[in-house]
Amino acid sequence: MGEVKTIFEPRKAILIGSSAIREKVGMASPQLFSDVIYNMKKFFHGKTYVLDTEGKISRTHLSKLPEVPELAVVMLPPEQSIEHAKECMKAGVKAFVMITGGYKDNQRQKLLKLKEQYDVKILGPNTIMGVLNTANGLNTTFERNVMPKKGNIAVISQSGGVGACLIDWACFYDVGISKFAFVGDKIDVDDVDLLQYLGRDKNTKVICLYMEGMKNGREFIEQARKISKQKPILVLKGGITQESAQRAKSHTASIAGSDQVFDAAFKKAGIIRVETIEELMNMAIALSKQPPMRGDNVAIVSNVGGPAILAGDAVTRNNLKLANLSEETKQKIESLYHGVDASNPIDMIADARADRYEKVLDLVLRDKNVDGVLVINMLKSTFFEPKDAKVIPKVASKYPNKPIVDVPAGGEDFELVYRVLSNTNIPLYNLPDKAVKALKILRDYGKIIGKH
Amino acid sequence: MGEVKTIFEPRKAILIGSSAIREKVGMASPQLFSDVIYNMKKFFHGKTYVLDTEGKISRTHLSKLPEVPELAVVMLPPEQSIEHAKECMKAGVKAFVMITGGYKDNQRQKLLKLKEQYDVKILGPNTIMGVLNTANGLNTTFERNVMPKKGNIAVISQSGGVGACLIDWACFYDVGISKFAFVGDKIDVDDVDLLQYLGRDKNTKVICLYMEGMKNGREFIEQARKISKQKPILVLKGGITQESAQRAKSHTASIAGSDQVFDAAFKKAGIIRVETIEELMNMAIALSKQPPMRGDNVAIVSNVGGPAILAGDAVTRNNLKLANLSEETKQKIESLYHGVDASNPIDMIADARADRYEKVLDLVLRDKNVDGVLVINMLKSTFFEPKDAKVIPKVASKYPNKPIVDVPAGGEDFELVYRVLSNTNIPLYNLPDKAVKALKILRDYGKIIGKH
Repeated sequence: MGEVKTIFEPRKAILIGSSAIREKVGMASPQLFSDVIYNMKKFFHGKTYVLDTEGKISRTHLSKLPEVPELAVVMLPPEQSIEHAKECMKAGVKAFVMITGGYKDNQRQKLLKLKEQYDVKILGPNTIMGVLNTANGLNTTFERNVMPKKGNIAVISQSGGVGACLIDWACFYDVGISKFAFVGDKIDVDDVDLLQYLGRDKNTKVICLYMEGMKNGREFIEQARKISKQKPILVLKGGITQESAQRAKSHTASIAGSDQVFDAAFKKAGIIRVETIEELMNMAIALSKQPPMRGDNVAIVSNVGGPAILAGDAVTRNNLKLANLSEETKQKIESLYHGVDASNPIDMIADARADRYEKVLDLVLRDKNVDGVLVINMLKSTFFEPKDAKVIPKVASKYPNKPIVDVPAGGEDFELVYRVLSNTNIPLYNLPDKAVKALKILRDYGKIIGKH
Repeated sequence: MGEVKTIFEPRKAILIGSSAIREKVGMASPQLFSDVIYNMKKFFHGKTYVLDTEGKISRTHLSKLPEVPELAVVMLPPEQSIEHAKECMKAGVKAFVMITGGYKDNQRQKLLKLKEQYDVKILGPNTIMGVLNTANGLNTTFERNVMPKKGNIAVISQSGGVGACLIDWACFYDVGISKFAFVGDKIDVDDVDLLQYLGRDKNTKVICLYMEGMKNGREFIEQARKISKQKPILVLKGGITQESAQRAKSHTASIAGSDQVFDAAFKKAGIIRVETIEELMNMAIALSKQPPMRGDNVAIVSNVGGPAILAGDAVTRNNLKLANLSEETKQKIESLYHGVDASNPIDMIADARADRYEKVLDLVLRDKNVDGVLVINMLKSTFFEPKDAKVIPKVASKYPNKPIVDVPAGGEDFELVYRVLSNTNIPLYNLPDKAVKALKILRDYGKIIGKH
């Protein structure tokens, strides 16, 4: 019996394409074939076989293989794809990633019938980019030499374009990824199956979805409700309006329902909804690195005044609260540092270095009136140096139940601190409002867990 | 008589500091002094004199100078700063940038009295970063070797930290700047004076303000109302809540009024309000490069489906409309490109290259139902190449009254297209929602101009 697991974790895979077919989008093309071969040979830890129907790249025939691969990645025009998939099924291949699109209804039906007959699992057709698994290097995308770094964020995308943008974003901004799946036309494996699989996947801590419509809505919500107790699920939903929903319908052949219905369903399922691609990635980073926030009270610890005020504004806009620090905390801070006003947001003044950050953060995190902390450490106009940021994960590790996020505000300043902290569990944001939003989402997830 | 102009456009400047004083934030420090000297010597096109009160760097004495400088940049502790400023006034210096902070009320009074006696202009004290002018290289900041590129966006900041973040952002993201001013304690030159000056400055096309409170509110609004007819004014206001307003008060000694009052005042003045530092910069770029939008109707032209749907969602969220393309436009596009559905958002499919972008953009921009266009050109998962983007400014130049913004969505994709288009008048955004927001602001400014 074919399993979803096999789609992501085969030991042997066969790539079926053509080295001579005329190039066409959504369809087979020699370039796409060559790129997938390149990526699989370069990244995949298992064995990769290549079946070139034109025989220029490889004259491999299924029957000649020393062993049957578990996964076939098929990138031929619909009829040929179906034909070759059938041959593979006969030979005992149990899982399929059907890359190419352009299937007609009757072709989808034909493929589905074969699936039932041979009891296999099919992702697609029309997945275009297929799957990525950073744990075993599986990479069926045709973006040559593009592979995100290992991490614990999984992404399911109903759109090739949004998925491609998310891969590009993850690679460029160094976001750690566990799995990527492009669902395509979903004749077999759908979001529910993928959720189920990722819910059990030990390499996945946060699940991100881009969706335009929902198949098996009730089942999806039921499944998500169970998983969201263990792993946060973030959703970016495209097609919120009648006009764009109409477009979404023609785009992925799924029915985009009224936006309010989705909103209610997501709430019921403990799914956190975001509005943009950047939010999806930024919030996933926060959830993958920090604990949920157990109350609304945020402390802001900064070496500059203005950005701390903007952070305070964002706290209000996100319906969080500026923590009332205890008198004890305030007095301790003010007695240690003359000139520092320990009212929240705390402006530690531009000469604050590692030592002051460490002591003040320790006092603030210890305060029972504080549920989460936002740190601002600018370099420009201050004496702070990138290496000083090392004290942040150090102090944070003493308070594993309180989330902490860091804002080296700006462009170069962000880059310089990022180099020091990127491999720690401290999420970094280039502006205060993005970090506050991260705390908001950590608070939301705290409420979701609390509910169950 | 001293003029604000002299603060930004002196031909000769004298830097007054100490090479031996003990380092203290907001106060004189040898490092700060040395950094300002470095920046002025490196960037300033005029003559820079240095007066080191300790005589280690320079034994210059005012009376020994071949000519009197127009501007003095003073970075000594308050008493010494006042004393040296007075000497300069006696010698005929007409403009002052008072860098250091920590002034007491009576010291501010003393400086103000001298200002009146000698009829000079003073920026500060407590400006910390002072001023930048990319036209003549004037740079009194102590961020060594940091200078934004020439452009037509001016920034006035009430906060050193926010200002420093904006400079960092401008340098890192290559935003073209005309002038930067850190207003500090505003004993003399205030936002009204700076607005007036920038309103007349031929190098400034857009004015950005970060403010926490307002001095001379009525005058400010009156002045802004006049200028906003000619040049867009963007404001980021820190301290929207009672708590953060309280902090803002202690931070810059200005009174932060109720947020609703500010909102109403900004509307009256034709000032466009933004919520974040990124928005301030992104919107300034749009306004500096593109014409205002004269109606609500946005066309989206894309080579991918999902991101175009997200753009459509953002159009709705920003209270704009998806343009109803004329039947003529649709038919022309669909007859040219089989398989392209010319309903807005237009998905030109992943094989769209320069030629298809050029023809479709031309048809869409020509359509009278279209007021502005958002282009999406992803590279990942498509056949688009960075150089193809050159057709966008080419077509746009034929329609100078309709704004156009471009979204090479993602990380690396954005970078690659940015390299091709950064020196054109096409504003680029890495995600659809940011580009839609830019069109929204161009629409807002269209309404502001329309009103007058």
